[in-house]
Amino acid sequence: MRDFSQDHHWLSINTATVRKSSGRDLPLPQIIEACAARGIRAISPWRDQVHAAGLDVVSGLVKQHGLQLSGYCRGGMFPAADAAGLRAALDDNRRALDEACELGAACLVLVVGALPGALDGRAAHKDIARARAQVKDGIAALLEHARAQGMPLAIEPLHPMYAADRACVNTLAQALDLCEALDPRPPGSAETPALGVAVDVYHTWWDPLLEQGIARAGRAQRILAFHVCDWLTPTRDLLNDRGMMGDGVIDIPRIRSWVEAAGFTGFSEVEIFSTQDWWLRPHDEVLDTCIARHRSAV
Amino acid sequence: MRDFSQDHHWLSINTATVRKSSGRDLPLPQIIEACAARGIRAISPWRDQVHAAGLDVVSGLVKQHGLQLSGYCRGGMFPAADAAGLRAALDDNRRALDEACELGAACLVLVVGALPGALDGRAAHKDIARARAQVKDGIAALLEHARAQGMPLAIEPLHPMYAADRACVNTLAQALDLCEALDPRPPGSAETPALGVAVDVYHTWWDPLLEQGIARAGRAQRILAFHVCDWLTPTRDLLNDRGMMGDGVIDIPRIRSWVEAAGFTGFSEVEIFSTQDWWLRPHDEVLDTCIARHRSAV
Repeated sequence: MRDFSQDHHWLSINTATVRKSSGRDLPLPQIIEACAARGIRAISPWRDQVHAAGLDVVSGLVKQHGLQLSGYCRGGMFPAADAAGLRAALDDNRRALDEACELGAACLVLVVGALPGALDGRAAHKDIARARAQVKDGIAALLEHARAQGMPLAIEPLHPMYAADRACVNTLAQALDLCEALDPRPPGSAETPALGVAVDVYHTWWDPLLEQGIARAGRAQRILAFHVCDWLTPTRDLLNDRGMMGDGVIDIPRIRSWVEAAGFTGFSEVEIFSTQDWWLRPHDEVLDTCIARHRSAV
Repeated sequence: MRDFSQDHHWLSINTATVRKSSGRDLPLPQIIEACAARGIRAISPWRDQVHAAGLDVVSGLVKQHGLQLSGYCRGGMFPAADAAGLRAALDDNRRALDEACELGAACLVLVVGALPGALDGRAAHKDIARARAQVKDGIAALLEHARAQGMPLAIEPLHPMYAADRACVNTLAQALDLCEALDPRPPGSAETPALGVAVDVYHTWWDPLLEQGIARAGRAQRILAFHVCDWLTPTRDLLNDRGMMGDGVIDIPRIRSWVEAAGFTGFSEVEIFSTQDWWLRPHDEVLDTCIARHRSAV
């Protein structure tokens, strides 16, 4: 396992982590400047942040600072209540993919979506199997465009508590089944696959089959991204109460050891949503803490 | 599948559902009277409610009204930080089992526990594999006592969002692996097993392997209890924001059809924890709604 204790060479900042500074929106250009000033070599920005600043502006800043993108957040949200909705989702995914290419991202992260309307509290139906079928069809359709552009797609299995409204792919095994069905590869294939997974410790740490799932992913080089934060006890909010690494109960070094044993050599991306704690602090403090915890708790 | 639309013959009330009436604690004797007055044939009481009223009193009321107990809530919480804690947990489980026998419960439900101390926000360690091993050892030890008393143990896999603090058994497959390891049975065995599972739609609805897990459980007669409520969008609290059947996104009839196809013929037990909604209403309204929704949405 790589030694992270001496530096933050392999740290990436998912820019949602400092989406707010002292409770106020922090524009992406300032986030990029703050990361670059600390020698952070990689980020993973969110689309809404990129759109607010302008794709050209962000692309220019990324190049100017020589930053890498450990991922681009995010595509997905495939299921819809009707054919027009499915088409609109696919069109939007193609745009996300083009943006990921423009920014030179390592992958486009897919939060695949779930029951249409559920995110607004008005689910159009209760058929999760149908949503899962639409996810499969959506990824299959996007994959053609992704292959043509050379941009890998990373399915991120989300914690089962998001199965209704954000992602109906909820285990690593389920994500890998999709990868193998839609992007079969010969055993031992060494090149980056067109379709892989993002392994986030927050979403997957509870899974009794996690270690074997990571090993399975590794055998086909499917691990395209590795995300870290921590699970707090108590967790006060289903979405926005993620903890800083070391403040919760996830044995992050153990999971990283599995991911690296499976062949992953990329960045460890910090992704924290925290309405009640980290988003209330100055972003300088948050970034400095990310660096410290990357060395001590990842 | 049985027709529930005409009556509430197969309705059981988990007494946590009316733990509070209009926001105030409702003693178990009053809950029992209110259920009996509505022709509800079964309940599943919680230990703290039984202790507050007195085991003899509750046992007498149950017999007086001819009530069945679809389960007794609950044993479990096996993991501990040291040997004394493990012994204390096992002793407490033996007492729970004796109470279940005194009340004539169909099974003792096990919420198996997780990282010791996490429920109080002070996890003693982060080793979920160790907690899982202690759960296995604890059930094995309790099983001797359970077999001697003829009281089946029902492992309830809890939703993965409780993996840190309440139960580190989080999928039906994981629970069934434990059953098969600790209580092997010849194929086709017809008698009630010493160790089985409680299937709660709230905890399991998201699982892409749920249908096959239920079928697997059925092949060994492992389904000892079936619990219903609903998953709300949004869910405002990880513990106490469960919905009334029909108000959320779970396709309960579909899951019940799987459970019955697997051979389950018992009660459908309503278990709702709801600080912000149902516990604020009069218990008469809650029970009447349970009856109506049992007929229309289960």
